[in-house]
Amino acid sequence: MTAAPPDVVVVGAGAVGLATAWRLAERGVEVVVVDPQPGGGASGVAAGMLAPVTEARLGELDLLRLGLASAERWPAFAAEVEAAAGRSVGYRSDGTVVVALDADDRAAMADLVDRQRSLGLEVDDLQAREVRALEPALAPGVRRGALASGERSVDPAALVGALGVAAERHGVRFRHEQVAALLTTGDRDAPGAGSAHGASGRVAAEAELGDRRVVGVELVGGERLAAGAVVLASGAWSADLAGLPARARPPVRPVKGQVVTLRQRPGDTLVRHTVRAFVRGSTVYLVPRDDGRVVCGATVEERGWDATVTAGGAYELLRDAIAVFPGLDEAELVGVRAGFRPGTPDDLPLIGASAVDGLVVAAGHYRNGILLTPITAEAVADVVTGGEPPAEVQPCDPRRFDRVRSRA
Amino acid sequence: MTAAPPDVVVVGAGAVGLATAWRLAERGVEVVVVDPQPGGGASGVAAGMLAPVTEARLGELDLLRLGLASAERWPAFAAEVEAAAGRSVGYRSDGTVVVALDADDRAAMADLVDRQRSLGLEVDDLQAREVRALEPALAPGVRRGALASGERSVDPAALVGALGVAAERHGVRFRHEQVAALLTTGDRDAPGAGSAHGASGRVAAEAELGDRRVVGVELVGGERLAAGAVVLASGAWSADLAGLPARARPPVRPVKGQVVTLRQRPGDTLVRHTVRAFVRGSTVYLVPRDDGRVVCGATVEERGWDATVTAGGAYELLRDAIAVFPGLDEAELVGVRAGFRPGTPDDLPLIGASAVDGLVVAAGHYRNGILLTPITAEAVADVVTGGEPPAEVQPCDPRRFDRVRSRA
Repeated sequence: MTAAPPDVVVVGAGAVGLATAWRLAERGVEVVVVDPQPGGGASGVAAGMLAPVTEARLGELDLLRLGLASAERWPAFAAEVEAAAGRSVGYRSDGTVVVALDADDRAAMADLVDRQRSLGLEVDDLQAREVRALEPALAPGVRRGALASGERSVDPAALVGALGVAAERHGVRFRHEQVAALLTTGDRDAPGAGSAHGASGRVAAEAELGDRRVVGVELVGGERLAAGAVVLASGAWSADLAGLPARARPPVRPVKGQVVTLRQRPGDTLVRHTVRAFVRGSTVYLVPRDDGRVVCGATVEERGWDATVTAGGAYELLRDAIAVFPGLDEAELVGVRAGFRPGTPDDLPLIGASAVDGLVVAAGHYRNGILLTPITAEAVADVVTGGEPPAEVQPCDPRRFDRVRSRA
Repeated sequence: MTAAPPDVVVVGAGAVGLATAWRLAERGVEVVVVDPQPGGGASGVAAGMLAPVTEARLGELDLLRLGLASAERWPAFAAEVEAAAGRSVGYRSDGTVVVALDADDRAAMADLVDRQRSLGLEVDDLQAREVRALEPALAPGVRRGALASGERSVDPAALVGALGVAAERHGVRFRHEQVAALLTTGDRDAPGAGSAHGASGRVAAEAELGDRRVVGVELVGGERLAAGAVVLASGAWSADLAGLPARARPPVRPVKGQVVTLRQRPGDTLVRHTVRAFVRGSTVYLVPRDDGRVVCGATVEERGWDATVTAGGAYELLRDAIAVFPGLDEAELVGVRAGFRPGTPDDLPLIGASAVDGLVVAAGHYRNGILLTPITAEAVADVVTGGEPPAEVQPCDPRRFDRVRSRA
């Protein structure tokens, strides 16, 4: 290992940033990942559903195709990460059971399942007996269900840990520090490596781009890391990086999500699959882990950077989880966490080259960051090394908002 | 300060143990308090209601008289502790507002208030407008209420902290260690200070008492603290002390209670008084603190030493709290804690001399430990120094179960 300037600096050590660094390193690229707290963003709160089918919404076909393409990659990806890191990522391929509690809920479920089938997705109806066979601890009121047998889940905390080990074993270096600014240079500033705009030269952000290009990052404290390219993978925080030229600023916003983690009593296995439930007009999902924990999520709140774990958020998740699995009443309440999903104007992530030469974006994954990790890492590695990213990533071009924004 | 053997060892540094140590020290007694974690028992979970009236139940007249007698002492006690420690105990004299949500709840509330009045207790009816004036943020459905204007509250964590300082300033010494056993001696063991039954001589526990008396305690690790008397103030753990002769073993059992702590948003004062609410067949209380926190309690669970914070416990408290004050929906969920109240067969505490000479009990305060702290400390100090305890404490004689138990 050397301390020579890296080819690429990845800003952000969530699942996406780490997987990207690992994939780049596999291709022989020298990578430094900068993050004061790896896994401390949305990856640390995510439930880890790999659910392109049951997450599918009408009208989001590009996202559905992207999700399906990434889901296809997951079995091999999980196996590769585990082999590279020598540890588990908590991968489970049980499928997702969809259930509904009352008559209105059943109508909502049927509607969703119909729409999914009309898209050619594989979702099977389950009669009462079949539902009970799959999930014996469901509330007595649950009489119908559906099964998306191809869906899987992973433990995001385990994934982040394993990706970190895998990346490190491939020579990726880590700096547990905060990036203060992106450094760019351009022809108007006496071209050359020595001249760069950073925290102290933010005029670049408002100026025209010209042939300005990224030359590295500046850390809080003043140290500068030179790099041929910078991958911006800091989720909801990606818009806040100082030194970002305005036109290259990813249009991400924080979308608060709260999740409750329970732990089933020793010996209990009340929740056997990922379960999505329609519960008296509300929805909840429950994702079981091999160690007896169950993650219940999630609120979706547009509240800016307010990270408060609220009474109401916890209450609604507990209410719905216990309504679906009454036995969870006695489960341990391990904790309630809040995180920030990186939302985008069209719910599609931002993956690829930005308006600034040398700046590649891998952000804005909203509710699908864990699912989309394999395809994002692959696509970014392609972009950085001059390859052709998977076709499904094409609609995620970070520059797609440019025309709209320059009009506004 | 000297390291000479103390006159008294107090086992347990909850509110009762600390107040007792302080009162003893005020009377010139040399005291050592032994507890690995001061305030770590029921005092650390208690809400701190000083509520002899609204806690009153039909048929528990001795407890009611005791509670009223202790409540009378509270204003001076709080002032004294604060003066002695130079810090606040979070004492509030707002009174308790009782409310009911639906028609059945109103009937239950009216029944309780009637019974309290028949005991001569001061509880005033509140019409809708009066309830709203006192608690403007109550749910719209609340149309009636009652006010026990003489009730107060205190912050038990602040109380424990202040009592510790007050005791220390009066010369009380602290050992943050675990007591392994009570040490006793008796005529059959070559009478004299040198011979003692401890962890390694538990035969004493099963033998007859003779003129066996307490000579001190043994700490985990083997160190022995000699003392003229031992005050057993370790709450629900008081029955578990090794070396306790069977007849002197306090009949306490752990009664699990869970409480939720919320923090109102900055600037919000949704909860202005201690509020007790009847909520769709359930009950909840909310105790506000000056810093914006609100403690919501409490479950009452007979589950032995199971300290699990459960999904169901948190759910019910959040549900009821939000039903009464819908605005708490947005309050921060600070945490959920579980503790063990020391229950007794007749719900009355155990205060006074035990069947073993030199062992004084101050335990079994069940739901009323904070309320009963002043009178308990005073009574134990009386017993130890040969004075006459308050008359209201007389029914709390720890030996009252002896006849029943020797029959069994």
